[in-house]
Amino acid sequence: MKQKLRIVKVGGNVINHPEALESFLTDFSALKGLNILVHGGGKRASQMVSDLGLVPKMVNGRRITDAATLEVVTMVYAGLLNKNITASLQQKGCNALGLSGADANCIQAHKRAVTDIDYGFVGDVAAVNVQSISVFLQAGMVPVFCALTHDQKGQLLNTNADTIAASLATGLSATYDVELLYAFEKNGVLRDVNDDHSVIASINSASYQILKDTGVISEGMLPKMENCFEALQKGVAKVLLGNPTLLRNKEQPFTTLTL
Amino acid sequence: MKQKLRIVKVGGNVINHPEALESFLTDFSALKGLNILVHGGGKRASQMVSDLGLVPKMVNGRRITDAATLEVVTMVYAGLLNKNITASLQQKGCNALGLSGADANCIQAHKRAVTDIDYGFVGDVAAVNVQSISVFLQAGMVPVFCALTHDQKGQLLNTNADTIAASLATGLSATYDVELLYAFEKNGVLRDVNDDHSVIASINSASYQILKDTGVISEGMLPKMENCFEALQKGVAKVLLGNPTLLRNKEQPFTTLTL
Repeated sequence: MKQKLRIVKVGGNVINHPEALESFLTDFSALKGLNILVHGGGKRASQMVSDLGLVPKMVNGRRITDAATLEVVTMVYAGLLNKNITASLQQKGCNALGLSGADANCIQAHKRAVTDIDYGFVGDVAAVNVQSISVFLQAGMVPVFCALTHDQKGQLLNTNADTIAASLATGLSATYDVELLYAFEKNGVLRDVNDDHSVIASINSASYQILKDTGVISEGMLPKMENCFEALQKGVAKVLLGNPTLLRNKEQPFTTLTL
Repeated sequence: MKQKLRIVKVGGNVINHPEALESFLTDFSALKGLNILVHGGGKRASQMVSDLGLVPKMVNGRRITDAATLEVVTMVYAGLLNKNITASLQQKGCNALGLSGADANCIQAHKRAVTDIDYGFVGDVAAVNVQSISVFLQAGMVPVFCALTHDQKGQLLNTNADTIAASLATGLSATYDVELLYAFEKNGVLRDVNDDHSVIASINSASYQILKDTGVISEGMLPKMENCFEALQKGVAKVLLGNPTLLRNKEQPFTTLTL
């Protein structure tokens, strides 16, 4: 019988608002059992790029992580955000351990290959170190991952936090019974993006295909959904999407994804 | 029989020079047995304060850690430096785990009391979490500490890296046979600060008192020496001071401190 493990990804929009973050961390710290937190970066990295007088590099509307941007991302994600979240969880009695993918070699990645776009120092996850992460979990610690990985050749890499959460869920699902939760600014997957009450309660592979084909799910939600269904296909037991209060109140609407 | 544990503090002057840092990390990664690294901040934090257009707060010639400075220190120490050092050690086959004192509640501190000077968000170490650190060491990980602690009330605190190294050595000496090494820009404690060949090979409590009274040891070296002798008095087996190559070559001059 596998132990239950909950992996919670909290989005940048929660990170951006001190009160929302505080409320979320209070709820997260009250969770029993084995838990992992993955946090996005929010606006602080872009703000810092601008404060330092750097010009964000964009190619075809996609942000490029050049060397200067990677430094800022490393400072903001792994330093400012990760350590303040960790200290706040410690205050709330949660034995948080802030991590990047380089720490204890937890998340290895490949620098994204250059095709028509060179994304720069961006990593695609190659492997998750179940052994290291299990050491932490079994010691009663709560790993808190920021969105940075490494290539085992000394290079840190900027990596999408949604992907990190899905990769951790996938990698750990052989050993644990994993539930993956995406806590973000919406109440779940919405039938109408402008109507917060239009939450689709459950989506499976077949209905997902229809929702995609009919354009109900599009744009920003697509990469997140692809991550989720890939995780389910690779053994993750359950994926939930909803607003951060989902952690304490499962009476409210949210979206459950299944195969 | 206690296990041997080596705690190495590497100073800011090594951190400041990429080649010196690379060489040091290569030597450190080759060490066998149980090891902990503590690193200082170097010039990057001051540089970042200036890049962000902040004005360093000084009172009576002492640097004050105000809220803005703490943010920069958290970004540079726990983010930029700690994660790049960790990634570099991982590349060299050393299973580094980058930590602040908040992570897994490793190092608890009190905000320094305001007397004639309010140092701001500066922490004096209160306790070291032997249990958490032992989990890492016994799993074959190499903790890499930056110079940040927390107060368990959600507040990160800027803490002198020499003090962190001495506090870790002291706290862990009940469980481990601890050797504390300070790797810095000099060849050891010098009889004449301008003569790198004037290394004093060994100093004990009695000779330290004489060296202090006669002014041979003064100014910048005093707090480091006080930390070292306090650590020895509290059970640390041995303290060595020397340049970073001391890690691989004990034929060269260096200073050994004993009670």
